[in-house]
Amino acid sequence: MTGLLTDLYELTMAAGYFEAGKATQKATFELSIRRLPTRRNFVIAAGLAQCVEYLLNLRFTPEEIDYLRGLQQFARVSIGFFDYLRDFRFTGDVFAVPEGTPLFAGEPMLIVRAPLIQAQIPETALLSAITFQSLIASKAARMVEAAGGRDVLDFGTRRAHTPQAGVLGARAAYIGGCVATSNALTGLRYGIPVFGTAAHSWVLSFPSEMESFRQLQKLLGPQTVQLIDTYDTLQGARRTAELGPPLWGVRLDSGDIVTLARKVRTILDDAGLPDAKIMASGDLDESKIRDIVAAGAPVDAFGVGTELATSGDAPSMGTVYKLVEVDICGIKRFTAKLSQDKQTLPGAKQVFRLPNRDVLARSAECCAGAEALLRPVVLGGNLVETLPDAGAARARALACIAKLPTELRSLDVAHQHPVEYSKDLTALIERTRRNSG
Amino acid sequence: MTGLLTDLYELTMAAGYFEAGKATQKATFELSIRRLPTRRNFVIAAGLAQCVEYLLNLRFTPEEIDYLRGLQQFARVSIGFFDYLRDFRFTGDVFAVPEGTPLFAGEPMLIVRAPLIQAQIPETALLSAITFQSLIASKAARMVEAAGGRDVLDFGTRRAHTPQAGVLGARAAYIGGCVATSNALTGLRYGIPVFGTAAHSWVLSFPSEMESFRQLQKLLGPQTVQLIDTYDTLQGARRTAELGPPLWGVRLDSGDIVTLARKVRTILDDAGLPDAKIMASGDLDESKIRDIVAAGAPVDAFGVGTELATSGDAPSMGTVYKLVEVDICGIKRFTAKLSQDKQTLPGAKQVFRLPNRDVLARSAECCAGAEALLRPVVLGGNLVETLPDAGAARARALACIAKLPTELRSLDVAHQHPVEYSKDLTALIERTRRNSG
Repeated sequence: MTGLLTDLYELTMAAGYFEAGKATQKATFELSIRRLPTRRNFVIAAGLAQCVEYLLNLRFTPEEIDYLRGLQQFARVSIGFFDYLRDFRFTGDVFAVPEGTPLFAGEPMLIVRAPLIQAQIPETALLSAITFQSLIASKAARMVEAAGGRDVLDFGTRRAHTPQAGVLGARAAYIGGCVATSNALTGLRYGIPVFGTAAHSWVLSFPSEMESFRQLQKLLGPQTVQLIDTYDTLQGARRTAELGPPLWGVRLDSGDIVTLARKVRTILDDAGLPDAKIMASGDLDESKIRDIVAAGAPVDAFGVGTELATSGDAPSMGTVYKLVEVDICGIKRFTAKLSQDKQTLPGAKQVFRLPNRDVLARSAECCAGAEALLRPVVLGGNLVETLPDAGAARARALACIAKLPTELRSLDVAHQHPVEYSKDLTALIERTRRNSG
Repeated sequence: MTGLLTDLYELTMAAGYFEAGKATQKATFELSIRRLPTRRNFVIAAGLAQCVEYLLNLRFTPEEIDYLRGLQQFARVSIGFFDYLRDFRFTGDVFAVPEGTPLFAGEPMLIVRAPLIQAQIPETALLSAITFQSLIASKAARMVEAAGGRDVLDFGTRRAHTPQAGVLGARAAYIGGCVATSNALTGLRYGIPVFGTAAHSWVLSFPSEMESFRQLQKLLGPQTVQLIDTYDTLQGARRTAELGPPLWGVRLDSGDIVTLARKVRTILDDAGLPDAKIMASGDLDESKIRDIVAAGAPVDAFGVGTELATSGDAPSMGTVYKLVEVDICGIKRFTAKLSQDKQTLPGAKQVFRLPNRDVLARSAECCAGAEALLRPVVLGGNLVETLPDAGAARARALACIAKLPTELRSLDVAHQHPVEYSKDLTALIERTRRNSG
């Protein structure tokens, strides 16, 4: 994994720490959610697997080191630092909330405790990996909620911000509750179910719609999903009915879905195809899905793209990666930023989940009857145990969401879920603020 | 480049084309902008280099082919298709608008003419690559416009949707007019200037702010940018002033930028540091930049992250990749989709740019005195000539934007720029619609 996949300042700071003799100071950084994204009552944690993969494989190639040496920002840096980069390995610890866990504003998702340089350099990549997947998993959870038991499928790769975002976004959408993805590579890499229909180009490439339908059925058998809106949706439905089984169903991709779904359902039922399913797609988001469901339209599955793959209404989230502790020769110094509206809380933490509230505490505290959300994942640069796969993360998300208070599961903004500070943490915050600056 | 990096249906359709004996039919697909993103008067084309890299390196590994063979969707597909995939090479043609070109709604950005299967499979990856970079380049152009001659720097990697989006987003931001990026890998890969300051963790890692400032100055000399808001911005400015040169300047990352910039300017000037610059950052977008500039605040440069890296107000764009022509044994059939609100226009096209309007024409037409925007890039699977690099694309964008009518350069929505259809294209559209369905 390329070490240069980060902001330049992580590397100049690394050089500065090295030059200032701080390379071996133990530092604790906390990746946390400063603010929830717009209209979200919680966020589903996702992306941990990619963070761990990144940390355990972080290296600097000779070409990368030469590039840095040629930059004016490194003109004053001694050769020792570049030797350090050449031999770079992450040797620290990572504590993290399991993928699929709902989290609230102010809560840490991941903690890195490592020699200062090793903890600083990954900031950019960790933020990018975890923020994006958590956004997409959370967006998927909203769509699944809106669909009220009907299937939601991820068709978003083409709208994702680069192909890599397509692959990882599909993984995150699955964790958030989608049943399958159209992304073939995600299927292969992460063992996630794949699903596909056909495009308008398929229909257009044949001399007639009927011929294209016939050929698709020959190809896919019971997996056949006819795309019926290329010319005229109802005509497409009648042609599908005429061909009969084998058939999964049809896809509507334009027009008034509620009205069309009813008419198409009648056509299919009248032709003795009550098991043929209707999938809706085409610029859907959670509120459109909710409306279609509320109208009682006979839609069995939703294929969602753009809004899911970009988390369209909230494409970013205020996550931060902040230094909370420095350990210099065994003496701990707690750190906090006091910047206006951007304060941070000192000290390594734990999140305790109780049925009706979360408690943010110092890392060594206990809390009877509560689930401790931050768990060791990497210790001394080694993976503690195999991480749960996307399927396990998805199961956790579904189970955790089902246990949330009903108002938090609403698509609208609910009251903020209580996240309290423990007495010890409160005391540390006050002490640190008094001593800062 | 992995062939599975696409929607499953591209591959099932490919199998279907193969089985239906259509593998060698020549098809022409058009990647075009159906709708401009919200609040945009134009889009800056970007991402072509990555599309070409993808097409010329598109391969299927044995593992990928085995995966497909194991899927139920491929249960009816003959072995010949998997042999075809094993030997897959893109042998077609690509015509494209050069990166850095402003485009309007309805205009094609890229045309692929290749055997049907070869043109179908890349749909997903091409859409993802070109849409994302074009969105970011366009967003950058808005920020550069708002900054009115002051520098805009891309600090967005951590907010990008995956690390790859950080790297390519930084490239696109540069094409759109940013002067530099914080992304070190983008610097190395694309020869783009890199810039960095220091993070709050740098300041916090030292026992005092003053000590952190001193160490940064020792490290970076004249490139030193002190981050002065960790504890108190004005105190940070006074400490910077006390240390004196060498110094690039300071960065304000929170609070009321207009007021703080004025006070900080006074502190620096009073200390005999009139050349020390002031950079503003922290959740900036083009309207905040415009307000800061309009208030006459002494800000020399803007560092932008979240809004730029995600194209926050418009994280997606209605690009489509549609079949417009099929050539069966030398006989051309023109295709168009008639779906409600989603019609497409038949036939391979050219975009002619005239001073006051664009003309969308058929590919073989001429238009005296106009610039033909779609140019051959790949012919018969081979690159025609080395593509312009990001620097050249940036120069083209700046020059083209400067020539646009003033109202289109506004950050607000202007009248739509006229995009007319040639007489030949109009006739083809009518003929195709009459014959469709």
